[in-house]
Amino acid sequence: MDIINTKEMSKDDIVAVLDRAAEIEPSDALDGDVLALLFFEPSTRTRMSFDTAMKRLGGDTVDMGSVESSSVKKGETLADTVRVVEGYADAIVLRHPREGAARLAAEFVDVPVINAGDGAGHHPTQTLLDLYTVRDNVAAALGDLHVGIMGDLKYGRTVHSLAFALAKFGARITFVSPPSLRVPENVRTELGRAGIEFKEVDGVDDVIDTLDVLYATRIQKERFPDEKEYEKVAGEYRVTPETLETARDDLVLMHPLPRVDEIAPDVDETRHAKYFEQAHNGVPVRMAVLDMVM
Amino acid sequence: MDIINTKEMSKDDIVAVLDRAAEIEPSDALDGDVLALLFFEPSTRTRMSFDTAMKRLGGDTVDMGSVESSSVKKGETLADTVRVVEGYADAIVLRHPREGAARLAAEFVDVPVINAGDGAGHHPTQTLLDLYTVRDNVAAALGDLHVGIMGDLKYGRTVHSLAFALAKFGARITFVSPPSLRVPENVRTELGRAGIEFKEVDGVDDVIDTLDVLYATRIQKERFPDEKEYEKVAGEYRVTPETLETARDDLVLMHPLPRVDEIAPDVDETRHAKYFEQAHNGVPVRMAVLDMVM
Amino acid sequence: MDIINTKEMSKDDIVAVLDRAAEIEPSDALDGDVLALLFFEPSTRTRMSFDTAMKRLGGDTVDMGSVESSSVKKGETLADTVRVVEGYADAIVLRHPREGAARLAAEFVDVPVINAGDGAGHHPTQTLLDLYTVRDNVAAALGDLHVGIMGDLKYGRTVHSLAFALAKFGARITFVSPPSLRVPENVRTELGRAGIEFKEVDGVDDVIDTLDVLYATRIQKERFPDEKEYEKVAGEYRVTPETLETARDDLVLMHPLPRVDEIAPDVDETRHAKYFEQAHNGVPVRMAVLDMVM
Repeated sequence: MDIINTKEMSKDDIVAVLDRAAEIEPSDALDGDVLALLFFEPSTRTRMSFDTAMKRLGGDTVDMGSVESSSVKKGETLADTVRVVEGYADAIVLRHPREGAARLAAEFVDVPVINAGDGAGHHPTQTLLDLYTVRDNVAAALGDLHVGIMGDLKYGRTVHSLAFALAKFGARITFVSPPSLRVPENVRTELGRAGIEFKEVDGVDDVIDTLDVLYATRIQKERFPDEKEYEKVAGEYRVTPETLETARDDLVLMHPLPRVDEIAPDVDETRHAKYFEQAHNGVPVRMAVLDMVM
Repeated sequence: MDIINTKEMSKDDIVAVLDRAAEIEPSDALDGDVLALLFFEPSTRTRMSFDTAMKRLGGDTVDMGSVESSSVKKGETLADTVRVVEGYADAIVLRHPREGAARLAAEFVDVPVINAGDGAGHHPTQTLLDLYTVRDNVAAALGDLHVGIMGDLKYGRTVHSLAFALAKFGARITFVSPPSLRVPENVRTELGRAGIEFKEVDGVDDVIDTLDVLYATRIQKERFPDEKEYEKVAGEYRVTPETLETARDDLVLMHPLPRVDEIAPDVDETRHAKYFEQAHNGVPVRMAVLDMVM
Repeated sequence: MDIINTKEMSKDDIVAVLDRAAEIEPSDALDGDVLALLFFEPSTRTRMSFDTAMKRLGGDTVDMGSVESSSVKKGETLADTVRVVEGYADAIVLRHPREGAARLAAEFVDVPVINAGDGAGHHPTQTLLDLYTVRDNVAAALGDLHVGIMGDLKYGRTVHSLAFALAKFGARITFVSPPSLRVPENVRTELGRAGIEFKEVDGVDDVIDTLDVLYATRIQKERFPDEKEYEKVAGEYRVTPETLETARDDLVLMHPLPRVDEIAPDVDETRHAKYFEQAHNGVPVRMAVLDMVM
């Protein structure tokens, strides 16, 4: 069993992971098992939380180290690398800058492959921990929720996976972004084809009082030709205590982290701030995934 | 319980760590526990000995990896990083180039934080292993000792912590350095305020026959504008078999390592050389610290 | 007991390792033991397979990390580094760019040192896993085999170790390389002195039908002043399905990996391809070595 993306997982599959994560305890379930961590691009928190999850289950990890110090530099193909590593480990966690890398890897090896992000593609355990955090913090069923997704919706494509997953459960989605960072046409088409309705607004003020969840994302400076333009946009989409003044008491504020300026530090102490809890949920969710595939 | 610096530890606290280190054995005491190693600047031996110490106690570690490959590069604050990591690990070892970083981290998280060096600030487990090595190698009580601290006393500030700790036990201190690398004014004032007497000499020859311990430190080439000046100073403060000719039989020679030229290789075989043993003591001392805080 | 090179191992020593590797199972044999991984130059698969091997035996590892982030950068000698590390770990695996580094390290420490490659010198666990793969895949005794070693025989010096080891068992060797990449004079002399007969041919076509094993190696672009010259040579020594048309049914095709262009991907599916299995054998062979020295 591979975990390549959440789009291919049924609602039942997803619920099974979330339910397992809710109940999983540290154990020796994977004692004697070895998990290979192949990170072809850096991702501190994803790598550390997989590492932690494996160890909380009594297992061990072996790490490829950085690409600069790996045989990849000698021109080895990904297919060769994973075929070697499957002789070492009982499962492979793969992060790779190239879209489709995880699926390719899964085709070449017999051990389970878990996609930990493939470039502009998918990052299914992030989507799962996002869903887990939503479910864990709202009284209502996922299907009754109104979720705002805000920030860079053009390039920050893991939010597309989140939108599809939420829609699978019937949640209503409102995208909040500047016109220049709207959800791209192909995703829009795909959402439409899947029968998913969504609204698009320029600012969060108009919808904040109706949201159950506000999911803020990073706006990357590199996307803007002009620093001034970036400053302006970043400022408008920054969450401050003022942004939340008209929010419902139980609004859940999330962010995939790391944040730079998207959420003001004085929001951290509000009841809405759930982004650190969200990051922490990476451990039980990844424990559940490891426990299910290994 | 955090370990931020030894100045804030009472004599009893310090003795408790040293006593625990003297008796600690490999065990499964921390089985199931995870220690996060966050090294924002490299420190091979500190990192490796914490890693070893944790594993000797049956625990596991997760490593942030190098800063170049971490989310820090994306602009994340230290406060955010440690608040995420406390969701993964049961304690955090932190090395950071900025003075005060460990205290700041400790304010933001509930898990124990152990300072593994904060820039020009403190490095308490180094001070503790230094004390342990002294106590383990001298027949006399710490309070009856005469300790010479030699080399770069201006920039090599971990020796300031050592001086304070030794003085806390009543040891006499003699600083040995070129005039340009003397203990800086603020440390001098602080020592005075604490009622600690110390002597300062230019060369070790005048005091070597009265020392119980000679603690040599590295003189960094970068501190000198002129390579010739560096060569001259480095040569004068280099410990050779000749330096030790008039030393007492039981003089203990220490060095925090790595050394470059401060101690000649033919000193290694003398009865005085305790610097490798000192490095090895990093393991039991850090085991004791981990055992006490976790 | 150190493992520095296979030349110094008797036939019986080598057979003992191979026999142990054939029967070794995951266990807790090294529970509580710590292995230090000191890689002064990168080697992903060697490091990962030692790491895996140690963990499969219930032991733990501590990793020095990259040289860039180590005290080596501060000018520490290898002798000092290993003398510190022997206080942390129960055995040391050392990879170093300098020939003779492993032997030097072994002279300075009391814990076992395992050479994981010392520059242009030896890489004994590679030789052992090569022998293991040969023995595991051929019906005949090692002494009755005809082995072709092809590619860069001038610079790719681990194949010299393999040739000596195979010859120790009585195997016949044929070297296949362009004239510019022949086995160098000093190795030739040493082989002669040891009474080892070998043939040298320019192309594999003349001998392929008589080989039991074809061991291909990487031809490094950097060795050629002229890219065109490289392309020509690389093309001639590339193994394709056509190369193998006249091969015996049970020919075993090996390669130390990573490969670049030396073996065409469509050879992977043939019965001859044993190079991934060869890489996987790094684990049981290194488990056997660790089990025997620790």
